[in-house]
Amino acid sequence: MSTRQTREIHLASRPTGWPTEDNFAVVTTELPALSAGQVLVRNVFMSVDPYMRPRMNDVKSYVPPFQVGEPLDGGAVGEVVESQVDGLTPGDLVVHGLGWREHAVLDNPRKLDPVPGVSVSHYLGVLGTTGLTAYVGLLDIAGFRPGDAVFVSGAAGAVGSVAGQIARLRGASRVVGSAGSPEKVALLTERLGFDAAFDYHEGHLYRQLSAAAPDGIDVYFDNVGGDHLEAAIGALHDYGRVALCGSISAYNAAEAPPGPRNLGLAVGKRLTLRGFIVTDHGDRFRDMAREVGGWLASGELVAEETVVEGGLDAAVTAFLGMLRGENTGKMIVHFD
Amino acid sequence: MSTRQTREIHLASRPTGWPTEDNFAVVTTELPALSAGQVLVRNVFMSVDPYMRPRMNDVKSYVPPFQVGEPLDGGAVGEVVESQVDGLTPGDLVVHGLGWREHAVLDNPRKLDPVPGVSVSHYLGVLGTTGLTAYVGLLDIAGFRPGDAVFVSGAAGAVGSVAGQIARLRGASRVVGSAGSPEKVALLTERLGFDAAFDYHEGHLYRQLSAAAPDGIDVYFDNVGGDHLEAAIGALHDYGRVALCGSISAYNAAEAPPGPRNLGLAVGKRLTLRGFIVTDHGDRFRDMAREVGGWLASGELVAEETVVEGGLDAAVTAFLGMLRGENTGKMIVHFD
Repeated sequence: MSTRQTREIHLASRPTGWPTEDNFAVVTTELPALSAGQVLVRNVFMSVDPYMRPRMNDVKSYVPPFQVGEPLDGGAVGEVVESQVDGLTPGDLVVHGLGWREHAVLDNPRKLDPVPGVSVSHYLGVLGTTGLTAYVGLLDIAGFRPGDAVFVSGAAGAVGSVAGQIARLRGASRVVGSAGSPEKVALLTERLGFDAAFDYHEGHLYRQLSAAAPDGIDVYFDNVGGDHLEAAIGALHDYGRVALCGSISAYNAAEAPPGPRNLGLAVGKRLTLRGFIVTDHGDRFRDMAREVGGWLASGELVAEETVVEGGLDAAVTAFLGMLRGENTGKMIVHFD
Repeated sequence: MSTRQTREIHLASRPTGWPTEDNFAVVTTELPALSAGQVLVRNVFMSVDPYMRPRMNDVKSYVPPFQVGEPLDGGAVGEVVESQVDGLTPGDLVVHGLGWREHAVLDNPRKLDPVPGVSVSHYLGVLGTTGLTAYVGLLDIAGFRPGDAVFVSGAAGAVGSVAGQIARLRGASRVVGSAGSPEKVALLTERLGFDAAFDYHEGHLYRQLSAAAPDGIDVYFDNVGGDHLEAAIGALHDYGRVALCGSISAYNAAEAPPGPRNLGLAVGKRLTLRGFIVTDHGDRFRDMAREVGGWLASGELVAEETVVEGGLDAAVTAFLGMLRGENTGKMIVHFD
């Protein structure tokens, strides 16, 4: 491979239902010469996230769908190799949106100055889009107030693990979470400070939630959709609030699952359900970085992550594993 | 019947599914002597409303359920017969909450001073709880803004017919409504000023809504729930808002109907769905009365109502007819 060649992952075909390795292709491609204002980076970390799955469908949404035969993209940290930008020199780090490739040419790159002692990978997770999603969803969308009892689904995942901890640190009366394995349940209560947690495979969801939060809940942070939302609507107090962050339960379903049969309760309970997309809320990044960064530095907040080694060759496996719930916290791919 | 006897309607048994005449009983009862601060009224008008149906179930909600063997209640206008209240004399009118009976003894009654030329029945409808529900739901809950395209379901009903007209008078770019018969559809477009309307029996809901609002909608005022909500979620623009006012489609269902299968779209579209109960919003009564009263006086707003004659003997029939959609606008029972 010449120094101007690199490898990237393309969408080879659109998955129906659960994606497989066959839906992806590793492609060798030529890097263009740099123009003024550009840098060439070698990726060090890349993010695999649930939202990437619906982008593989040919459906108009808040972000354009991935195109067959074109590279995927997503959050990444790169190290500058060549620079045509004042103030950026080889070895500097940059957070950017061109993951799923070994190298990337970036316009308008912004230098990352990591806080000493903080893993660079956290700028894709708890101190990046993941942390902002949890922060905005809980505080701005669900309107969390100290004393609220909070339920987080997908609580051992990237966003959920942070949302639950922010709720605790901001003064929740109780924080409960659902997750997909006994190990994750143990992580939530033993390491992340949740008051109670349950494995949603282990029984009737509403009954499990009622046992974990016997006095009901005020806020539901929804990463899952489907029957989790139905159980939460049942448990919510009057004037309860739901942040609709994602519905991973539906992303790989061949057919849309039924909505919550008890949505009619939203009238009498005066519930508010509100969907949001983190990219609308960049103005809150600084607040999040200061507050979450402070908790991270003091050790009050645990930045759980699952780092997969192997770079581009491990990326598809990592992504598929994340969809199956093999990660705890943020799933990150590390390039050697 | 002595002058101290009266008749009232009791819940004889709890309906399962659609109620029938058998679930109700007319009972003769003795009126108590008046204490200081009380008046005795003879009811002139009483209201029959959709929300009364779920109150017949033994389910805890924002109002206590009706009790078997006890009288029903609901909005009514009464004429004072005897008074132990300063400033209230026989012949005065009072709006109160003890409908479903021929006479009522009221504590803390408030005198009604009807605007000349306005039917007294309107104080149970467009100038009463019905009007306040439409006003608060559209303006405060759905956050209507001039230029919004608005869809109202149950648009020929009591609340819907007012909500759609407020949207028009407040500067909606388009107001569309669904109703249950060709006659109601004609009422909406020919008399109430809706831009388009359709009969939900006549075809696929989402396709009908898309034809009526080809550029989509910003606000959905939901009186129906079920598949109407699913169609609206499909048609809503980004940042669309839903006022969840009721779900009459489910009130008589033996089993809860499925929720909207496309609720996952609320994330990408950043939708807000918010339930509300009008009794929380009494502070807006004066604003509503001034604004809606002005439109009523100028003739810009039509106060559609269906008045059933026959007093108490017609009340159950009127209520059951309202559940079947036999009314246009507010359904009122008149006592001779």
